[in-house]
This record gives sequence, structure tokens and C-alpha cells, in this order.
Amino acid sequence: MKQFISASGHIRQQLLAGISSAYYQQLDWIQGTGIVKKKLIDPNKVVLISGGGSGHEPAHVGYIGENMLDCAVMGTIFEPPSSKEILQAIEETYNQQGTLLIIKNFEKDLQSFLTAEKQAQEKGLNVAHVIVNDDCSVKLGTFEKRRRGVAGTVFVHKILGGAASAGKNLPVLTALGNDCIPMIKTLGVAFSSATPAGMVPQQYELEEDEMYFGIGIHGEPGYRIEKMKSSERIAIELVNKLKQQYDKLTLQKTAILVNGLGGIPLLELSVFMNDVQQLLEIEDIPVAYSRIGNFLTAYNTDGLSLTLLNIKEEEWLNYLKMPTDAFGWK
Amino acid sequence: MKQFISASGHIRQQLLAGISSAYYQQLDWIQGTGIVKKKLIDPNKVVLISGGGSGHEPAHVGYIGENMLDCAVMGTIFEPPSSKEILQAIEETYNQQGTLLIIKNFEKDLQSFLTAEKQAQEKGLNVAHVIVNDDCSVKLGTFEKRRRGVAGTVFVHKILGGAASAGKNLPVLTALGNDCIPMIKTLGVAFSSATPAGMVPQQYELEEDEMYFGIGIHGEPGYRIEKMKSSERIAIELVNKLKQQYDKLTLQKTAILVNGLGGIPLLELSVFMNDVQQLLEIEDIPVAYSRIGNFLTAYNTDGLSLTLLNIKEEEWLNYLKMPTDAFGWK
Repeated sequence: MKQFISASGHIRQQLLAGISSAYYQQLDWIQGTGIVKKKLIDPNKVVLISGGGSGHEPAHVGYIGENMLDCAVMGTIFEPPSSKEILQAIEETYNQQGTLLIIKNFEKDLQSFLTAEKQAQEKGLNVAHVIVNDDCSVKLGTFEKRRRGVAGTVFVHKILGGAASAGKNLPVLTALGNDCIPMIKTLGVAFSSATPAGMVPQQYELEEDEMYFGIGIHGEPGYRIEKMKSSERIAIELVNKLKQQYDKLTLQKTAILVNGLGGIPLLELSVFMNDVQQLLEIEDIPVAYSRIGNFLTAYNTDGLSLTLLNIKEEEWLNYLKMPTDAFGWK
Repeated sequence: MKQFISASGHIRQQLLAGISSAYYQQLDWIQGTGIVKKKLIDPNKVVLISGGGSGHEPAHVGYIGENMLDCAVMGTIFEPPSSKEILQAIEETYNQQGTLLIIKNFEKDLQSFLTAEKQAQEKGLNVAHVIVNDDCSVKLGTFEKRRRGVAGTVFVHKILGGAASAGKNLPVLTALGNDCIPMIKTLGVAFSSATPAGMVPQQYELEEDEMYFGIGIHGEPGYRIEKMKSSERIAIELVNKLKQQYDKLTLQKTAILVNGLGGIPLLELSVFMNDVQQLLEIEDIPVAYSRIGNFLTAYNTDGLSLTLLNIKEEEWLNYLKMPTDAFGWK
């Protein structure tokens, strides 16, 4: 790997300094921490906080803005922040409407965020959480606890962000989160592994003509290595697997997210989006909303993920469509 | 190279179908062509058109929107569209305010766009152009004609887009373009070459520990191969070289663009942005505006470019800061 940045440096500090200098009109970074806040926090709506390890940019700092997050708490590469910093973030952004934590389902993330939530509650603060577990590479039923939170988390930011702006209170937002998260399903595929600064060895290696279905966002291995396939064939695999996740539900109206993992060009993502749209058309699954881009990356992985959201309630779509100045949302 | 998409397919069609399906609320793609238009073209302002080869996404389709472009005309990978399609785009978007073409300085691009301009003028249409040549890897003075149009083109889209919305007429916009373009300077560096579908052989190869200064956005070779350096050292090289471009001018107030070439993670771009900001601070060059992201890519190149804009007029900054719904602008 080419050492462009040094793992021995303070990557998190440099990263957040760089981002907050560019987007200083919207963002306040609390120097020396992983906490980035919205410049002006509305006292009249529930505060939304997310976060996790770095290396997934623009997640989550890129989702701070109007009708999305109020705050993101970031750790160093692929490592969540400490509960102490999350508690500090809760306190620094607190208002009388309470705070909702949006957590990706990883053991370490849960530990940090839930510890901070408990400590905040002990201080009398009104804090709740939702856990995003949209990754479908682990079989439903057996190891559900291990289903990870991946790109679908961005849909949760957008829907809950819109609902918070619309004045929904903390219990309603929590229920909305718990209602829509099971309707979000994601599968990823990689053509290369991630090579983040200072993190060797890689968890898997692929031959020049191989690809890997079901990989995670931290370079975790997937469920099947295959010979490299075309965009069209990959779309068939992912759409079929995702459809099966909805059991007896009918996919009446969907939102789709084609997410680049950091090293794939937008041209290829767009071609893949076209393949997905054509497949869904053939299958009579209407697409009401779609987005393409790097939303939740796995450092520089050459690969992508596809997320389906079964839009059960029309208001979810309204929230998705609300404008935002968050720089990561396109 | 892993063949995720097939060069034998209709890449341009698939690409534009994918993008326009996702952003259908803003964009109208004329099927079978490389022409993408803004949904609603304001009859009361000058029409702005840009374009060129594909493989640079989000450029230029991603800059169609409020206060930016009205139309983009795209060719296939790294090949500009035909003059016929550009003429069609001029005619399909024409209003009584006239049309300005924003062209990147490549021989083939000039040929297509200027031929179309001439044909449109012969039909009595009011069309003008500006040529962006911000790339500084070619020495000033000697081969200036060969200076290419690269990431700084996005600043031109934003400034002229804002000015067009503010009601400036075609001669004023053309003069503004010719005034600000020489104030925009860009240099790129690559850690890998681009490997676009169907385009072999690559124009250069780098060893595992090498980097290349001054590369182009179509995989063109640069001016010097060196052993891989840190973000900080690369920032020093690029900032120094860019500063020298301004002759006796003082850089009083600058805008900077840290642009990913398609295969580099946003985390690394952000760390690099921090290094650039720190350097400029030491040199007492104030930064009034900055952006980080993939703005004008070179397919999947692992690398970046740095653009400086010397803000001579306060109104340029106002135009940069105007809001837009163009999906490529962050």
C-alpha cells in the first residue's frame, strides 16, 4: 500500500480539521475530540446523533445539516469513539426535546453508544437509541444479532432527520426508526480489499479475476468468492438476494441506494444503477426514489453495495425528499 | 483490470440512463444522445452548456442545476461528443438570452464545441464560449496552448452559473469567464493510473512505491515520477508550484478545491486538505472558500488534484457561495 497518510499521525484530528475547515459555515468541530456539531442546533426539535469509526466518509460528518443529523462522533479508522466522547456530545448538544442515537450494529459501537446513553440517563437526560442492522450477508434467523449496520444507515439519517424537523417527539422518532429499519436491506460486493493506512494485514485477498459477495465495511470477508462478473450479473445476484429478505411482504414501492465503497468510479456505479433499475422494472417493483454515490464507504475498497428500502408509509418518502445542506447527501 | 462494465456495451447510454433515473426530478436526458438538460430552463437568463468525454463523473452532468449549468453534452469514455449533438443541445435549450459554452482545453473538445458554435451562429443563434486551461503541468509561456482544462472547470461552472442567475448578459459572462479563468490553477498527482473499461494499454505504469506529478485526467503522463511521499510533502510541492503561477500577483484571497480523481478515499482527501490549509496559513494566504471531494475525476485513478483560485473580485466569492441543487456540488 502507498503510504500517502501516516497511521502514526493523528488521522482523526487531521481528517476532522480538513473537513471542518471546508464546511465551516455549517459545521463546528470540537478540537481534540471526534465531535462535530451542526453550527446552529434547533432548540425545538429532537437532537439526532450518529457516529462510529472513521474511514467511511462522507459518513457520518457529511450528514450533519438541515433535516438530517445534528452531530456526529467519530473515532479513528474503523474504531468507534469512546463512550466518554459520546456522552460529551450528548451534553454539548442537549435541548429539552431529548436526543436520539443512531447506532450501526457492531459490538464495539453498541458498547460505546449504549454506555454513553446509560450515563446520560443517569444524569437525568432524555436519551434513546435505534440500532441499524441492514446488512444481509448474514443469514436471517440464525445470527441476526451479527447483522451489521452499513449503507442503509444513511436512509435512517434522512428519514429520522426529516421526521425530527417535522416536530416528531423522541418516542415517535424511536418508533419510526424501529419501524423503518427492518424495511432496509443491504448487500455489498468487493473487487478489491480495503487498504487503510496502518491497517495490515488485510482480512482477505482477491485474485485479479475474482470478486467477493457479502463483504463488510471494515474489510470483513463475505459469503462467496466468484470469478469476476459483469455489472448486470451482479445486479441480478444482489436484487434477488435482497428481495428474498422481505419474506411475504410485497415490495410495493421502494427506494434504492447504489453506494460506492470508496475506490469505484461514479461512472461504474451509474451503469450498475441502470442495471438495477431495469431489473426492478422487469419484476414490477416500482422505484420511488434512488440515489447513486459514495455514501458510506469502506476506505478505498473497489466495490459497491445495493440498499433497498420498502417504503411502507408515504411519509418516509416525504422525509427522503426533504432538502438538506449536508455535504454528503447528493 | 476487472471487467465490471463492458466497453462493448453502450456505456454512455447506460451511464446517462442510470444518472437520469436517480435525478429525474432535476434532469431530462434526451435518450439516444449524450445530452442532459435541466428540467426547467429559465427563459430569462443566459443558457450555460458544458460537456466532454465521460469518465470524469460527476462532471459535467452533476453540475446541472440551480445557479450552475443548464445542460451537459457527454461523449463516451474520454471522447468528447460530436459537434452535431452539441448543436442539437444548443438548439434544444435555446432562449433569447443566448448560450455560453464552457469548454475544457483539449484539441478534440475544442474541435467539437467550436464547430457546433459556428454552425449555431450561422443559423442566427447567439452563442459564445470560454476555454478553461487551468492545468499547470505544462510550463507557462512555451506550450500554453497545451494547458488542459481540468478540475478548475468546476469553479468556472459555479462562478458563471451564479453570474448567469444574477442576470448578467452573454458578453458580460464571457468577459467574466475570461477574467477568472487565468486566476484558476490546478496540478494533479497520481498514485496509480486509470484503468477504464476497454481502454488498454495504460499510458504509464507506476511501481508500488512510486507517484507521478502533473498527470492528466485521461491517464496522460505527468512531469516527474518520484518515490511515494506523504500528504504533507505532496501539499508542499503542489502549493509551491501553484503559487509560482501567479507571477507578480499577490494571492490576497483564495478559493481551494481538493479534488479526488476517482479511486482515493475522502478520508485521505480531507487529511490532504488539512495539510494544504496549514501551509497556506503559514504563508499568510487567506482561504475564503474551500471544497473537498470527487468533482472531476479521471475514472478510477488513485490520486488527487489541487486547484487554487485567486479571488480578484468579491462577486466571484458570492457566486461560489450561492446554493445549488446540482448533485455533484457538495
